[in-house]
Amino acid sequence: MDIDRKILKAEKIVEIRFNEVDSMGIVWHGSYPLYFEDAREEFGKIYHLEYLYMFDKGFYSPLVEMHFNYKSPIKYTDKIRVVITYRNTEAAKIVFDYEIFDVVTGELRATGYTTQVFLDKNFELMWTKPDFYCEWEKLNGIR
Amino acid sequence: MDIDRKILKAEKIVEIRFNEVDSMGIVWHGSYPLYFEDAREEFGKIYHLEYLYMFDKGFYSPLVEMHFNYKSPIKYTDKIRVVITYRNTEAAKIVFDYEIFDVVTGELRATGYTTQVFLDKNFELMWTKPDFYCEWEKLNGIR
Amino acid sequence: MDIDRKILKAEKIVEIRFNEVDSMGIVWHGSYPLYFEDAREEFGKIYHLEYLYMFDKGFYSPLVEMHFNYKSPIKYTDKIRVVITYRNTEAAKIVFDYEIFDVVTGELRATGYTTQVFLDKNFELMWTKPDFYCEWEKLNGIR
Amino acid sequence: MDIDRKILKAEKIVEIRFNEVDSMGIVWHGSYPLYFEDAREEFGKIYHLEYLYMFDKGFYSPLVEMHFNYKSPIKYTDKIRVVITYRNTEAAKIVFDYEIFDVVTGELRATGYTTQVFLDKNFELMWTKPDFYCEWEKLNGIR
Repeated sequence: MDIDRKILKAEKIVEIRFNEVDSMGIVWHGSYPLYFEDAREEFGKIYHLEYLYMFDKGFYSPLVEMHFNYKSPIKYTDKIRVVITYRNTEAAKIVFDYEIFDVVTGELRATGYTTQVFLDKNFELMWTKPDFYCEWEKLNGIR
Repeated sequence: MDIDRKILKAEKIVEIRFNEVDSMGIVWHGSYPLYFEDAREEFGKIYHLEYLYMFDKGFYSPLVEMHFNYKSPIKYTDKIRVVITYRNTEAAKIVFDYEIFDVVTGELRATGYTTQVFLDKNFELMWTKPDFYCEWEKLNGIR
Repeated sequence: MDIDRKILKAEKIVEIRFNEVDSMGIVWHGSYPLYFEDAREEFGKIYHLEYLYMFDKGFYSPLVEMHFNYKSPIKYTDKIRVVITYRNTEAAKIVFDYEIFDVVTGELRATGYTTQVFLDKNFELMWTKPDFYCEWEKLNGIR
Repeated sequence: MDIDRKILKAEKIVEIRFNEVDSMGIVWHGSYPLYFEDAREEFGKIYHLEYLYMFDKGFYSPLVEMHFNYKSPIKYTDKIRVVITYRNTEAAKIVFDYEIFDVVTGELRATGYTTQVFLDKNFELMWTKPDFYCEWEKLNGIR
């Protein structure tokens, strides 16, 4: 049962940059990976799962999948809040779900997810979770 | 039966820019929307379905969904070929599938898809395909 | 005499994004326009000289010149502070000077400047400062 | 006398990407470093002065200065030609001048220059030109 498992979440306020907006006056769809990454960085800081930490442990964790659902356009003057949620999975993967909200109206602007795998120092794909990661999951109450 | 329907495809050779590569020496995952858009532009030119053409007909066609599967990393010195294929659908949507290949080795580096909807000039969502688009489909042998 | 004139300054703390770093592990030189623009935005907010404000007054103020001096490389993990200073000039121009400092060490990482001119709504170049801008200068104690 | 010295030039046709255009419908000023770099890459290919070649010889050649003069705006539908010209200098520097032309009208849209220095493998600044570079200059008829 998942009942006692913690839900790991983080969030990041993002200011839209002028160059992220297209000639229609709305944020270009290809700018959203920036916002997801900002949230992922924030998650990494809070829960100590930074790129550099994983690298020190001997692993890379590249993205193998990224998905966006655009609900309503973001404008230059908007301030957005990106909520990132850790998705529990048995697989040797790191999956995050994202929601982008308008800070002022609370409106949901976009959702999406990313999937990362583990590679060892020889760039070989890990079929099971690395030890350091199992410990990280335990430490954070999700295993 | 779909048997007589044409398959609409286009492709675009893309040169990787230095700034699209990250500190790992591989193309940053967030650069791929550029390559998909390059291919979509090329498709638009070949089959006369440019943004500006749609706009002249009174419609916007924003992306509502974008998906990437990263198969193997792209390096700065790689030359890539992005193949875009029109996906037949009854819905009032434009769906494209993408494949990114290494030009030299032929290796598949990434796949993905995008979904666009139709908005009229008042930014109202169209629940059926606009007339100009039905004609475009007929003209191109896909209806 | 300039002796009583105020010096208008603003500053902005900027977090480096992963995608702004190149394959050498340092911030790509072409990312610096982002940081200058962040500072210019901040200046605009503080002194009420936003793009939209100027536009409401009937003017555009496009960049016609931009200059960078790169002193020492910025790394992904660095936090930077961009200081923007308004340069007094008699010409019908807006000139800003920029300094990028490492927040932790205080080291100067880069300097530069930008020059903007005024265009009216017909995109005609203004040879003298627009009235609204002269008032803005007076209000801020620099004329 | 400079009279017998060759002038080294290269040029690159660049297609404007949708995301390089801002909400004013013109190319964002911060996109121009991309075009300069495209031209520099092309120069490197033609005259065998690529980043990787210099690196193999034991040197980095980072930009220390970059300058832009924006003459007239570039639109999404424009095709541009970037001309890069090697500037002869006695200093231990690589200086390039750039001109961006509209391919169709021939109009000059922007000019600029970049300055690079030489660092050895220990990131120490070279006060004189490295040997490999002097040979490169001779080979290309500019010394």
